[in-house]
Amino acid sequence: MNIGFDMMGGDFAPLEAVKGLQLYLSDNTRTASIYCIGDETLVKPLLEEYQVTSPNLHLIHAPEVIGYHEHPTKALKEKQRSSIAIGFHLLATGKIDAFISAGNTGAMLVGAMFSIKTIPGVLRPTISTVVPKINGGTGIIMDAGLNSDCKPEQLDQFAILGSLYAGNIFNIENPKVGLMNVGEEEGKGNILAQATYPLLKANTKINFIGNIEGRDLFNDKADVIVCDGFTGNIILKMAESVYDLAQQRGFANDEYFARFHYENYGGTPVLGVAKPVIIGHGISNAKAFKNMIAVAEKMIESDICGKMTELFKS
Amino acid sequence: MNIGFDMMGGDFAPLEAVKGLQLYLSDNTRTASIYCIGDETLVKPLLEEYQVTSPNLHLIHAPEVIGYHEHPTKALKEKQRSSIAIGFHLLATGKIDAFISAGNTGAMLVGAMFSIKTIPGVLRPTISTVVPKINGGTGIIMDAGLNSDCKPEQLDQFAILGSLYAGNIFNIENPKVGLMNVGEEEGKGNILAQATYPLLKANTKINFIGNIEGRDLFNDKADVIVCDGFTGNIILKMAESVYDLAQQRGFANDEYFARFHYENYGGTPVLGVAKPVIIGHGISNAKAFKNMIAVAEKMIESDICGKMTELFKS
Repeated sequence: MNIGFDMMGGDFAPLEAVKGLQLYLSDNTRTASIYCIGDETLVKPLLEEYQVTSPNLHLIHAPEVIGYHEHPTKALKEKQRSSIAIGFHLLATGKIDAFISAGNTGAMLVGAMFSIKTIPGVLRPTISTVVPKINGGTGIIMDAGLNSDCKPEQLDQFAILGSLYAGNIFNIENPKVGLMNVGEEEGKGNILAQATYPLLKANTKINFIGNIEGRDLFNDKADVIVCDGFTGNIILKMAESVYDLAQQRGFANDEYFARFHYENYGGTPVLGVAKPVIIGHGISNAKAFKNMIAVAEKMIESDICGKMTELFKS
Repeated sequence: MNIGFDMMGGDFAPLEAVKGLQLYLSDNTRTASIYCIGDETLVKPLLEEYQVTSPNLHLIHAPEVIGYHEHPTKALKEKQRSSIAIGFHLLATGKIDAFISAGNTGAMLVGAMFSIKTIPGVLRPTISTVVPKINGGTGIIMDAGLNSDCKPEQLDQFAILGSLYAGNIFNIENPKVGLMNVGEEEGKGNILAQATYPLLKANTKINFIGNIEGRDLFNDKADVIVCDGFTGNIILKMAESVYDLAQQRGFANDEYFARFHYENYGGTPVLGVAKPVIIGHGISNAKAFKNMIAVAEKMIESDICGKMTELFKS
């Protein structure tokens, strides 16, 4: 398997990307070929300095970088030699099987939707975020901010995409799907939640367990939590702030609160597009990069995008 | 000043209500007259047992109780001798200046809106929840669940009501109002947030500081956070669960995380109605009841409802 890795994305690139690669390769069981895409005048000396060598490593020169504040569509068009544009080109042509970047999020989304394309039948791709459960398990919540306003049909699709992700990446059997809401009973909620409930209830491709509430985010009620991207983004950032609060109060080393740190999850996959695309946090560090590569590996191995395509055919 | 206090509301009533009263009266500076509304065959022996006596205490017999699962409108109509119905009757006729109950939330809301009435000009009353800030301060977020779907004009009014509350009850001068959103820049967000931003920006009755994000809930960016009740309710319950997580991880005694416990805030006032009405948590304990009485006292003292009425005239 071939994984494309943008060495230039993130506030601490390419140094942290190189260190992430080092971490990843230090595990000898890894067999994926990594295509490191970036400015070789910057990346090569760092790979040498950190002695990151492997027959599975391939450096692809990308002299341009898309900055954080550039307009996604415009930048992707004009900077054809940027690491993100090259990454999507390689992914679209099948040279790589997954693409990872912690660079300009908008450019990554535009690239995912326009060079890789949405899976036929999927209304809109979605991004998710990982939720650390108090019992040690892992949940995901989606949409995490890509689609601020959603239709019930979209939430219904998120449930399918999320279930496949939880099943294939977290190895959760028959993942429980919950609808984020303000009460447990059917009929509760805003117009969107009220209209979504019957769709989820009738959806035979998922294991719908009903409504869940804000207090259920960290317990074991649901493995996959669906909501619109406005709600999901607020939840995501609020959960991230729980880590900051724990840190400020001196509990950062607590085993549970430590799991709130973004680096443990690496990045967020764009679900609903035909190939694995993973977007990293702007502040990604070595551990985050390593975990992103590991998620890409799992996504390729499980052929999750192929499974999604199959499921949306029927 | 006269405060009506439902002795029968809450899972642990009337015992915890009696103990809350005891706590409140143990502070000798308290001068409010408390009208204890409840079944005297249950309340009187408890008041005697706990030696809760004061010339400021008046027991009003209410032989009926509205249960948690009763239909609010129906129960209020049929159980005229219930503590909630009597409370609102006393409030409407001016015998008491505020009414507190941890009973059936729906009945409390129906009572507030129909026997006390909404302040002229207010589209819909709102309920808020308190947010403990990491710097020691206190913020409020509203709507906390009364209005799942909102119009921009409602959020604009919540900002005014919340600013008055933060100013008069928390003594925050010129409280900063933030719009809960998914990004800082104007133009971000779902349709509701996008349409609300310009209204808040143009509102001369508030100190609007712009959008805030989920991560800003516990920092000092905003004192008053406005959002629809769907979003607010999820945030409220998620914040409550942070207390549970801290407790489960053994940090319940941490000074900051302890502030997440609902008992510190007592209850949520119904804002936008003509007189102070406070709804308590179903699991209210003595400390929560004491704090509810203290909030009622502050609301009467500051004439917050009068100020709201004035502000909505102009």
